[in-house]
Amino acid sequence: MLAEIRGLNEECGVFGIWGHEKAAEITYYGLHALQHRGQEGAGVVTTDGENLKLHKGQGLVNDVFKRVDFSKLSGHAAIGHVRYATQGERTIDNVQPLLFRSQTGSMALAHNGNIMNAFKLRGELESTGSILQTSSDTEVLAHLIKRSEKLSVQEALTDALQSLVGAYAFILLNEDKMYVALDPRGLRPLSIGRLGDAYVVASETCAFDIIGATYEREVQPGELITISDMGMETIRFATQEQRRLCAMEYVYFSRPDSDLNEVNVHASRKKMGIELAKESPVEADIVTGVPDSSISAAIGYAEESGIPYEIGLIKNRYTGRTFIQPSQELREQGVKMKLSPVRGIVEGKRVIMIDDSIVRGTTSRRIVRMLKEAGAKEVHVRIASPSIQNPCYYGIDMSTKQELIAANHSIDEICEIIGADSVAYLSAEGLEQAIVKNDSINQGVCMACMTGNYPVIEKNQQEIAYTRC
Amino acid sequence: MLAEIRGLNEECGVFGIWGHEKAAEITYYGLHALQHRGQEGAGVVTTDGENLKLHKGQGLVNDVFKRVDFSKLSGHAAIGHVRYATQGERTIDNVQPLLFRSQTGSMALAHNGNIMNAFKLRGELESTGSILQTSSDTEVLAHLIKRSEKLSVQEALTDALQSLVGAYAFILLNEDKMYVALDPRGLRPLSIGRLGDAYVVASETCAFDIIGATYEREVQPGELITISDMGMETIRFATQEQRRLCAMEYVYFSRPDSDLNEVNVHASRKKMGIELAKESPVEADIVTGVPDSSISAAIGYAEESGIPYEIGLIKNRYTGRTFIQPSQELREQGVKMKLSPVRGIVEGKRVIMIDDSIVRGTTSRRIVRMLKEAGAKEVHVRIASPSIQNPCYYGIDMSTKQELIAANHSIDEICEIIGADSVAYLSAEGLEQAIVKNDSINQGVCMACMTGNYPVIEKNQQEIAYTRC
Amino acid sequence: MLAEIRGLNEECGVFGIWGHEKAAEITYYGLHALQHRGQEGAGVVTTDGENLKLHKGQGLVNDVFKRVDFSKLSGHAAIGHVRYATQGERTIDNVQPLLFRSQTGSMALAHNGNIMNAFKLRGELESTGSILQTSSDTEVLAHLIKRSEKLSVQEALTDALQSLVGAYAFILLNEDKMYVALDPRGLRPLSIGRLGDAYVVASETCAFDIIGATYEREVQPGELITISDMGMETIRFATQEQRRLCAMEYVYFSRPDSDLNEVNVHASRKKMGIELAKESPVEADIVTGVPDSSISAAIGYAEESGIPYEIGLIKNRYTGRTFIQPSQELREQGVKMKLSPVRGIVEGKRVIMIDDSIVRGTTSRRIVRMLKEAGAKEVHVRIASPSIQNPCYYGIDMSTKQELIAANHSIDEICEIIGADSVAYLSAEGLEQAIVKNDSINQGVCMACMTGNYPVIEKNQQEIAYTRC
Amino acid sequence: MLAEIRGLNEECGVFGIWGHEKAAEITYYGLHALQHRGQEGAGVVTTDGENLKLHKGQGLVNDVFKRVDFSKLSGHAAIGHVRYATQGERTIDNVQPLLFRSQTGSMALAHNGNIMNAFKLRGELESTGSILQTSSDTEVLAHLIKRSEKLSVQEALTDALQSLVGAYAFILLNEDKMYVALDPRGLRPLSIGRLGDAYVVASETCAFDIIGATYEREVQPGELITISDMGMETIRFATQEQRRLCAMEYVYFSRPDSDLNEVNVHASRKKMGIELAKESPVEADIVTGVPDSSISAAIGYAEESGIPYEIGLIKNRYTGRTFIQPSQELREQGVKMKLSPVRGIVEGKRVIMIDDSIVRGTTSRRIVRMLKEAGAKEVHVRIASPSIQNPCYYGIDMSTKQELIAANHSIDEICEIIGADSVAYLSAEGLEQAIVKNDSINQGVCMACMTGNYPVIEKNQQEIAYTRC
Repeated sequence: MLAEIRGLNEECGVFGIWGHEKAAEITYYGLHALQHRGQEGAGVVTTDGENLKLHKGQGLVNDVFKRVDFSKLSGHAAIGHVRYATQGERTIDNVQPLLFRSQTGSMALAHNGNIMNAFKLRGELESTGSILQTSSDTEVLAHLIKRSEKLSVQEALTDALQSLVGAYAFILLNEDKMYVALDPRGLRPLSIGRLGDAYVVASETCAFDIIGATYEREVQPGELITISDMGMETIRFATQEQRRLCAMEYVYFSRPDSDLNEVNVHASRKKMGIELAKESPVEADIVTGVPDSSISAAIGYAEESGIPYEIGLIKNRYTGRTFIQPSQELREQGVKMKLSPVRGIVEGKRVIMIDDSIVRGTTSRRIVRMLKEAGAKEVHVRIASPSIQNPCYYGIDMSTKQELIAANHSIDEICEIIGADSVAYLSAEGLEQAIVKNDSINQGVCMACMTGNYPVIEKNQQEIAYTRC
Repeated sequence: MLAEIRGLNEECGVFGIWGHEKAAEITYYGLHALQHRGQEGAGVVTTDGENLKLHKGQGLVNDVFKRVDFSKLSGHAAIGHVRYATQGERTIDNVQPLLFRSQTGSMALAHNGNIMNAFKLRGELESTGSILQTSSDTEVLAHLIKRSEKLSVQEALTDALQSLVGAYAFILLNEDKMYVALDPRGLRPLSIGRLGDAYVVASETCAFDIIGATYEREVQPGELITISDMGMETIRFATQEQRRLCAMEYVYFSRPDSDLNEVNVHASRKKMGIELAKESPVEADIVTGVPDSSISAAIGYAEESGIPYEIGLIKNRYTGRTFIQPSQELREQGVKMKLSPVRGIVEGKRVIMIDDSIVRGTTSRRIVRMLKEAGAKEVHVRIASPSIQNPCYYGIDMSTKQELIAANHSIDEICEIIGADSVAYLSAEGLEQAIVKNDSINQGVCMACMTGNYPVIEKNQQEIAYTRC
Repeated sequence: MLAEIRGLNEECGVFGIWGHEKAAEITYYGLHALQHRGQEGAGVVTTDGENLKLHKGQGLVNDVFKRVDFSKLSGHAAIGHVRYATQGERTIDNVQPLLFRSQTGSMALAHNGNIMNAFKLRGELESTGSILQTSSDTEVLAHLIKRSEKLSVQEALTDALQSLVGAYAFILLNEDKMYVALDPRGLRPLSIGRLGDAYVVASETCAFDIIGATYEREVQPGELITISDMGMETIRFATQEQRRLCAMEYVYFSRPDSDLNEVNVHASRKKMGIELAKESPVEADIVTGVPDSSISAAIGYAEESGIPYEIGLIKNRYTGRTFIQPSQELREQGVKMKLSPVRGIVEGKRVIMIDDSIVRGTTSRRIVRMLKEAGAKEVHVRIASPSIQNPCYYGIDMSTKQELIAANHSIDEICEIIGADSVAYLSAEGLEQAIVKNDSINQGVCMACMTGNYPVIEKNQQEIAYTRC
Repeated sequence: MLAEIRGLNEECGVFGIWGHEKAAEITYYGLHALQHRGQEGAGVVTTDGENLKLHKGQGLVNDVFKRVDFSKLSGHAAIGHVRYATQGERTIDNVQPLLFRSQTGSMALAHNGNIMNAFKLRGELESTGSILQTSSDTEVLAHLIKRSEKLSVQEALTDALQSLVGAYAFILLNEDKMYVALDPRGLRPLSIGRLGDAYVVASETCAFDIIGATYEREVQPGELITISDMGMETIRFATQEQRRLCAMEYVYFSRPDSDLNEVNVHASRKKMGIELAKESPVEADIVTGVPDSSISAAIGYAEESGIPYEIGLIKNRYTGRTFIQPSQELREQGVKMKLSPVRGIVEGKRVIMIDDSIVRGTTSRRIVRMLKEAGAKEVHVRIASPSIQNPCYYGIDMSTKQELIAANHSIDEICEIIGADSVAYLSAEGLEQAIVKNDSINQGVCMACMTGNYPVIEKNQQEIAYTRC
């Protein structure tokens, strides 16, 4: 699925390390591994025990750090963040980590998720004399901590977290401690690992692989971890509930080489393809996937069905931030943007086109037409997840219900709209099958956008803030 | 294979269009498709019938054109170039197209290849009063044309081409015509297509797909084509010899979605994998490929062998030009650069690792070690082309003979050096089998670097210039 | 006097306009005229009645606005700021105007001056739950306003201003009003003018001349002016005290074409030179001034003494921010930095060198030596203001007392230290004479750094914040 | 006079040094001193005896060198250039020094002046097989040298110089020698100095002052100097003719602190003002000058007339390359661009406004109106040079005859057109008086643009090339 085109947007990524003399550089490499989760901005804050030091900027990790002098980011601990931003809020102020200084000490915050009652909390703070500087949810947490009358940061943070409603993974750094917290349902991924004696925390385990760290365990729902030179200490700030990790992390957001809840993402996607081939077979000449996120599922479908996998669609890797979009006139003449069909492969063939999901349907329609114009005789669309019929309130920027094609159309209608010869989705059971591990660690996923079964019942949806991460 | 690491470098790419009112923009998109052939510089020259206009710069196509005003590059015809440069010659002057103005008219040149006698020709020009401004071979051709006493450009160009020894694909643009020439052996790829009424020329057919053009035919060895508002005219400047397209274009250089001599590159790579599985089977749990160029071969190997294909290695897509390389200390601690193993996939497994080629062996050794450190029980290396034992004089920047591992070691020694459990290469017959089409168009390939059988016998190898493209 | 070398640093500049459809552009030109007051950063905030829009950045006005799209800064009112910053605080966060948004409305602040009790006020705010984001004094005012329980901005601002101790000129902009305030002693300059129907406010009247506005009057000490679509309204937030405008504004800070308290700066400097010639004549061949700020005084001295004025010293206008300073070795070989002697003028001459002030004496010493090396027979230093013997607490970054040469040495000692043939300062009476107008508007100046007579007696000098403006 | 507004444009500047281990850095400081002669581009070429190294770029010296690593420009000799460019030729290729490499050696050229027969010479070169890469006159000289059959550079250069018609000052650098040449009439300024044992050459002596060098002598008309480790050798390539240094160098182009032909520029300008006061006195209250180039003359006029000099006009020093020009609408509302009147000085006064010259008259008209709008009762314009009635063919970009106001109007008409109360020009005798020294070194100046008396009679004016320097 091509995120930019279809409206299903990527999440932020957080990283932290405690106890390594090259903390900032390690964080730089960690953020590289998480780059797919946010390309609008990146930043690092370090502590050397006495001062917090910040470097952040807009753009890719490489752009932000291209002239950085790591000797100015010295310290044995660091937190980092890559940011995905909704339109209109692309200012440097919202790039994280956010750093708050005072005469008595400083704190830095990195956050992945969505605080659903942020708007209300912000209004309460402002009406009692606070000035907030960003439009970010994250700043609300900082003010709640500052306002708490508890003396220790751990207690103040526990207070503050109990005011929040939503999905979140937080890392907080001050001069002498690092705090890690996950929302009571565990909607966002967050893992802990070790790099020698150092502790590392990251949104995805691929950040451990790139730095050579070893995975230890998942952060638990409702857990608040304190890391310092004394080691690691953990408490619960919320009663234990069943974990509900976002299913879209498996389907689309996470990198194929990450393990989520100890299940490899590529492997789960390949199983989605295998399940899909079992549920919805079709006679065809080749199987192809929409790059990059659907390749694993396509290979799984091919393996199960015995129909050869081929590269029928190719993504232009070099269309970056400064790519000049073709005009409407040139698009009509056939100029492609990010994806091209491979005529030599698809011409004269019956093609099974695997995609991970459909949001509005416009992209699927364009790809089907592209394949047919390149000579495909038939195009059978197979989607490696259940249809998305409901908006998400937990931190994923999805079209509102009116725009979701599956919320308003039957499968036959969708097939006609996108011009395919047949369309089929994976069942919810098939998806769970692909994700769930034999043993018990993976207690459950949130499939609310597919099933409508929301893990948190919201009294007032208007509380939802528009800026997330 | 990871080019940056191993010393087998990419080639330049050329593009031309005649007869389209958005010639510069079309060329911009065409160069995007050819970006993998050269990332050091890019440029476009247009003609509006009266003036040639140039825009070029160092870096990726996106960087070079990010603030370009296409209205200043008006014209109905254009040529473009993406440049790969050897170290030390990274100046803007060498970025192509080269533009030469005079009081009686201008010409622009875009070139892919290597003029082997450039150094000698340059000396002759200088000793008789010419000043050359670049260290590029391409400028030599311009001076030879200017010095010719023939009145028409076509005749002067024919004269000049006959002085050249080497592998080359040229596009020349002046105010009212475009000229296209390919060396007498056809060592470099060059195709012609149509976009509506316009003519298009490109190093690879993927540039046709991105702009919606249709493929017409290959430029023939020794052919000189003249395109103008009167249409297309062709002559031969050299006697016809058997075509010898560089085999490495199939193995590594070209994009999988391109057709070379009407054979799809992905399909040929998959066949290399299939042949390799037939020739050198081995018992294992998974097949994995070194991204990106070896993925097709790995899928072919998996398909033929019945062993599942998995993503055991992953490439960090965001390590670009400004990526800060980890220090030796951090690399020793396990920080990865461009490639990471996927522990969740390879741990405890017997892995068949497919790569397209081995040059010096250092990268293969690193990847094998990486896989073993991530828990692979066995690593069987299978190379989807014959071993490289000879240098190439035709435009590919390959290590000299001393550095080629296969020139100095037996397969068993290589296996030991890189730490694999077994190593096997595809045979030359297997490679030809994967490339050759049933019908006759694909008359032959150059496999000199593998077989030592050079299509042009050079009297004096010291004539070879160091700057190419 | 060359500020960069000698430690007497420039002040910030503020500008505001209400009631002009091109408010942002007018502010851009106004800031150009004030550029000499601060070259570290610049910014503009506009209001269109509903939203405040900000553009700011580090560097010169030209740099900050070079790619600005003024259509994104629409609105009928704007405030602007140019910033001089002490070392170590050169971050974008401290560049003004500071903009504070909340759910109920926004405010922007531009400030010239120094809040002496800022550190204490900041501590009080933080200990009761506020988070401050900058190290700027100006933010303290914003929090005091936000904390005030008064309902109107005017009343809250009056409250807040009464907490402040120091020298300040503030402009505050919110969606529908502009507020202008000057400290109770009027230590900083601030004038009001008209541009057609629009109101304009600026630190110096040269900003009125560049935009074609006409001067109306000075803002009075302790005055708070409210400007809106209803016109202009004024109140006093402090009891009236005698005005004490900083004398260094006449001597050095302000532009020669500005009027301060209705006295032209060039004219007053020329009079300083005339008074100096009367008080301390000396036989010589030529009079020369240290560019730029001492030229007017030198011309006055020449006019009064009858000794010809010549250009004996010249400033290199092109040594900007990116100028590469000569190494110690090259300086010793004679390479000059910002100022060169004109050998053709001074060789063999007895030179009267006029400067506006001496701080540490190191620059004077260098200039005297430079003139002698260029052949001057004698160098008589005449300073167009009284000697500086005391630090300033009101917003001028002056060396502490130990570094002030005149605080620790007699005139004869100074003469010997700087290598001059004679040295004389203007008397305090002479300076007053040069500044005071015949009529009564100019009630007085602060000459505390020269006389030690401070207009505000500070109980606790440690309250002084290090960041100003 | 404000060059940008009025069409009288500045010249290029050249600098060279032989025999100093920091040659590139010294050249950098020398180019700073010459920056006023060209702000479009700058460059340096060094030699270390074996290789020439180049660094050049568009913009100010500071911009071009802001990230330069001088260790990459090592060598004991260097030449440098600052470039003024006519519109349309602002490409990096035309920025000097031009560097020409060949297999047998390299040469670099820096040039100030205009080769009048460049177009014809270029045509001859191209028609016999040469390719020229720039539109610069300077390249023609390089080809003439390369084409010469003489063996030594000195002889080939003598040959080549004899083909040239025009005004020029050249510095040529190759691996082991530096060559300096001045045209047979000495129209352009060029001086030689010493810095310790090193030789230095520069367009103006102010470049010697900034680096601490001492002036030795002028380069003579028709002289060709060769500098090497063996010392300095001189020959004549043309028969001696009377020197005719461009009078506008004194009037406007050169820096006031330079000596031209051993006459100080500021002193000569002051004398122009004194002569002007004698020739054309007028009753008035103040004298003011148009900054920067007319200040010296204004001070001279004041000194002679006894009328006080005041700063009635001020230039905004910060309007640089990126300054956003006010729209027509804002200009009509009174927004000033580069120059503002000082109301406090001119209001109610009879003003004598001194300017150095008038070209088209549009700027004079604007300044007179500006002064009157600021309240001046009378404005008497006094021009410190004779009226410009003829175009210049020797390297100064002046309006063609139709645009020169004095070529088409009487003084009374000019007075009416520009709205002054009276206008007077300095006489040709007065100008000569101000420039000529008592002793004989200053044999004569070229005042062709004022008197029509051209030192070289041109057969064919169409030979004149449009690109100079």
